[in-house]
Amino acid sequence: MKTEITSAFIKRYRSIVRDAMLPFQWRVLNDEADITIARERKNDAGIPTEKSHALENFRIAAGRTEGEFYGMVFQDSDVYKWLEAAAYCLMQGDDPALKKKTEYVVDLIADAQEDDGYLDTFFTIKEPKHKYKRLVESHELYCAGHFMEAAVAYYEATGNQKVMETAKKLADHIDDCFGPEKGKIHGYDGHEEVEIGLLRMYHLLGEEKYLKLAEYFLLERGRHPGFFLDQVKNDDMTPVFPGMEYAPATYFQDHVPFVEAEAAAGHAVRQMYLCTAMADLAATTGNEEVKAACERLWKDITNRQMYITGGVGATVNGESFTFDYDLPNDTMYCETCAAVAMVFFSRQMLRMEDSADYADVMERSFYNCALAGMALDGEHFFYVNPLEVDPEKSDKDPGKSHVKPVRPSWLGCACCPPNLARLIASIDEYVYMVKGMDVYVNLYMASSMSDGDIRVIQETDYPYSGSIKLRVVNDGADARVALRIPGWCEKYTISAPYELKNGYAFVKCPNGETQITLDLEMKPERNYANAKVSEDAGLTAVSYGPLVYCLEGVDNGKYLHDLLLPSEEEIKTHREDDLPGGVVTLTADGIREDSPDDALYSRKKKTRTLQELKWVPYFSWGNRGENEMHVWVRES
Amino acid sequence: MKTEITSAFIKRYRSIVRDAMLPFQWRVLNDEADITIARERKNDAGIPTEKSHALENFRIAAGRTEGEFYGMVFQDSDVYKWLEAAAYCLMQGDDPALKKKTEYVVDLIADAQEDDGYLDTFFTIKEPKHKYKRLVESHELYCAGHFMEAAVAYYEATGNQKVMETAKKLADHIDDCFGPEKGKIHGYDGHEEVEIGLLRMYHLLGEEKYLKLAEYFLLERGRHPGFFLDQVKNDDMTPVFPGMEYAPATYFQDHVPFVEAEAAAGHAVRQMYLCTAMADLAATTGNEEVKAACERLWKDITNRQMYITGGVGATVNGESFTFDYDLPNDTMYCETCAAVAMVFFSRQMLRMEDSADYADVMERSFYNCALAGMALDGEHFFYVNPLEVDPEKSDKDPGKSHVKPVRPSWLGCACCPPNLARLIASIDEYVYMVKGMDVYVNLYMASSMSDGDIRVIQETDYPYSGSIKLRVVNDGADARVALRIPGWCEKYTISAPYELKNGYAFVKCPNGETQITLDLEMKPERNYANAKVSEDAGLTAVSYGPLVYCLEGVDNGKYLHDLLLPSEEEIKTHREDDLPGGVVTLTADGIREDSPDDALYSRKKKTRTLQELKWVPYFSWGNRGENEMHVWVRES
Repeated sequence: MKTEITSAFIKRYRSIVRDAMLPFQWRVLNDEADITIARERKNDAGIPTEKSHALENFRIAAGRTEGEFYGMVFQDSDVYKWLEAAAYCLMQGDDPALKKKTEYVVDLIADAQEDDGYLDTFFTIKEPKHKYKRLVESHELYCAGHFMEAAVAYYEATGNQKVMETAKKLADHIDDCFGPEKGKIHGYDGHEEVEIGLLRMYHLLGEEKYLKLAEYFLLERGRHPGFFLDQVKNDDMTPVFPGMEYAPATYFQDHVPFVEAEAAAGHAVRQMYLCTAMADLAATTGNEEVKAACERLWKDITNRQMYITGGVGATVNGESFTFDYDLPNDTMYCETCAAVAMVFFSRQMLRMEDSADYADVMERSFYNCALAGMALDGEHFFYVNPLEVDPEKSDKDPGKSHVKPVRPSWLGCACCPPNLARLIASIDEYVYMVKGMDVYVNLYMASSMSDGDIRVIQETDYPYSGSIKLRVVNDGADARVALRIPGWCEKYTISAPYELKNGYAFVKCPNGETQITLDLEMKPERNYANAKVSEDAGLTAVSYGPLVYCLEGVDNGKYLHDLLLPSEEEIKTHREDDLPGGVVTLTADGIREDSPDDALYSRKKKTRTLQELKWVPYFSWGNRGENEMHVWVRES
Repeated sequence: MKTEITSAFIKRYRSIVRDAMLPFQWRVLNDEADITIARERKNDAGIPTEKSHALENFRIAAGRTEGEFYGMVFQDSDVYKWLEAAAYCLMQGDDPALKKKTEYVVDLIADAQEDDGYLDTFFTIKEPKHKYKRLVESHELYCAGHFMEAAVAYYEATGNQKVMETAKKLADHIDDCFGPEKGKIHGYDGHEEVEIGLLRMYHLLGEEKYLKLAEYFLLERGRHPGFFLDQVKNDDMTPVFPGMEYAPATYFQDHVPFVEAEAAAGHAVRQMYLCTAMADLAATTGNEEVKAACERLWKDITNRQMYITGGVGATVNGESFTFDYDLPNDTMYCETCAAVAMVFFSRQMLRMEDSADYADVMERSFYNCALAGMALDGEHFFYVNPLEVDPEKSDKDPGKSHVKPVRPSWLGCACCPPNLARLIASIDEYVYMVKGMDVYVNLYMASSMSDGDIRVIQETDYPYSGSIKLRVVNDGADARVALRIPGWCEKYTISAPYELKNGYAFVKCPNGETQITLDLEMKPERNYANAKVSEDAGLTAVSYGPLVYCLEGVDNGKYLHDLLLPSEEEIKTHREDDLPGGVVTLTADGIREDSPDDALYSRKKKTRTLQELKWVPYFSWGNRGENEMHVWVRES
């Protein structure tokens, strides 16, 4: 399947990634960008913020230069994710300057690899005696997984042999060291990711042992209680994250085997990477027990633990899932990486089962929480994506210091920016899905795809319009196009006969050309959270099509909590091309409450005055300076 | 002045203190109570929870037995506060058994004192080489202050000479070690308290050097930046609280001299103890600069940083004040000790200036946040007093693990229970105030007082009734009674002519007997927070007289956030003697919202059904098992 994106909305993002984000990240990785690196929260003095040093670590490990390792223990993964994103850009068209950089990186990584295949600059440079001895914190397999993902993408983009040789050598080395056999390590990494990388290696190469190794890591997890702690107790290295071995087993999804898990738990990114790999495994091997667990966790997350923006992770403590219906708007985590991983997980669930529900969440997480992770200039990034922010509280309340009101230019723990870059650069892979003779349209996005005898040309102004024109050119046998009917849409018309199943409208496309027009009624909508969500009681979140909207101080003044949207008031749409990115904004006649005097507590009711309320899409918030923001708005 | 309390409400509390709390605490201090000691929060593994060991520490320091020190570095203060509370009980009437225990304690403390006057069992037993060398964390002067307070109270109650000799020897030793003179330590304790103790010693003994020493500690604070850190850097003791020397200077109120402070900051109990001592100093010496600073901080706290319950401390991080109008209801601290200290501060402000405003806050903090610190059985205590709690969130959200839904039987850091005990046991000292020929009635409470030629007999069912009858018997020259008109009261009648000034109604009481009836209109009231308080937007807190009310799950079911009080609905009062303590409860016809289905997010508006709402006084919450609680309720 080959897909080309023509959507102006997405092309703009992709050009940001190619022209701004990747060059900027390149300068950062080379310590050439003049930036202030932000701490994630006020009390994380342990996070290095002087520089990235990521490529220099590789140069030192490769023996090209001398020096000390600097950065997070998983600093290597920043380079790998950059390389993966660059690979997707190269798939979209020639870019000799970018290609040269990537070739430099591929050579450098190969040089940094040890003779036996081991690859991790932290341990090669700093702690060579402690390889694989502290998996609770070492992130060695996590980094390896990211390299494998990058290698697969880069190989697919360029056919570069060296990157695949390096990746195979690394995967083989890990296979030599881990597994059920005697003499191997019976354990797994504290941070899931290598499983995703190994499965991608398997999908590309068909090498059975990579599938088996991924399966080993996945199915063994939660069956070796005490493994992390025992390793650390038997090792004398200075800890990277002191005390991490005492974190609750849920943090690592090590409290229970995945197939027995009832609910998402622990560190959200880890949980989502685990879910992604598990759904891939189930889709690949047909493991019914794993499939059932994936469906169980999917329901738990999307029905009880997910924000309306598609973000997950309700607390900064352990950057974790908490429990059903616990969805605070101002202290949550909603890490960009976790939203990106929700998109990964959704896609794997779709592979397993063609239900539009999965695509709905994929769309929700992508267009809202994930895209919000990057500024419209491509050079500033959120780690945490709040649904409510007050700059003064972020500044002065230590419990909210992780919630930034504006995107910093880089992060000491820089996992998010390149993760988002690789998703945006590869979003074409998420639009269509082919199963047998059915072409699924999972995302609406002006684009064209071809697969075998079939071509689909999609024309639309989505996400700002629900009008979609499809031209299907079929040079082969009878086929169908499956049009996803979005969960957000209540009324729609399709110009051709269709059969509805699992949220998809199946339209027959015989040999020849078929024209289909899909009209999704798109209008401003009020959304209400379940009554069990205490934080959203009395509040409404406004959406327009797939986009969640928010109020910002720059449009609505201070004290957004004092604004009310009357319950029957009409919400109007406006196209505003002069706002960054050109967006559809919403307005309504609203109310502002105020106090009659300065008293802290008073018997007097608050005064009410009329004020127009103005919403912008959530993904675009925080691009016009520091100000308050609310997704959930009081309704009167 | 001598006061006797006849109020059934207060006598009940005082008998709890005398008959339940003090005997229970005695067993705890002797490690004889069969209790589970609660951690304050989940991550405070450093807090000792095996036992109290407080009296055993004294026995070891006294050489009566052998062993190791156990407990918090300030464990001694638990004994001192118990002794102080016991002293107040002894003032109210003979109690030979209690007296015997107190004499044992006084002898024991004297024995534990070193020859030069030094007194602190942690350092005597465990770290004798490090006395006064780590004031950032040692709490040596903090403990000393509590002993001085206890000694003054116990001496006043019993005339015991030994306790006063011990206290003087200790105060003299501190005076030898600290001060501006060459060779003395130019610094102060990390936790204010000794200043209060020294001033009480001065008030009792008239010994000028105690006043001077208190003044030195108070006025020097904030003028020795780096003192805490320098001490620790020059000392090699294993830290008690590792890293405390790097806490922001605001935590210790060391960021600025008090006279220059614009706002309350840092650890709330420390700030309130500092304010209390400062107001005492200003009232005692007439220092205008200190007085102005006290008034500034008073306004800052009560107009912008105080909860409606009279609690202070908006965050668990550093148990601290945060900033103006930052008053989260579910993550706050509102430590019982801080509310107790608000009562202390109010009383000292009243000494300085007769404004009913101070007495209003004294009443608010006492009847609401402070009294809530103790269960109605006198054997369970809150450290943290939330305005909103959900047991599931306390259990599962690490960011709310400090918020307990029921009172534990004891606390690893046990500062609060004896602090509340000493306040309740001495509450008679807060009811009246004599200035010249004016007798101020600051608290309404059935009681009688006599001072010189004047006697006042107060009859009332306050706080459940606003009807107050005063009989003033004056055997001397013309005098006045100043009746406080509470801030919560909008309509009142007084049976005698009066002159209104600073919130007091002054009624002339010539020689002879004067009968005065004061009728304060007491009815259920809705209170609204300032519009700048985001957490209270759209919410109302119901009060009745001085009491703040709350909804509890046991009366109103789960999901209190889904309940609404219609804006014009009448709130009815009920006397319920079968509820613990016998209280006035409130009810109103309210509304419950619910979701039409299980969806996490829905376009459908919530359903509304009628439900009677029932409120109980805030001080009485959490006495009927684990359940949700809300002070602030949605208004429709």
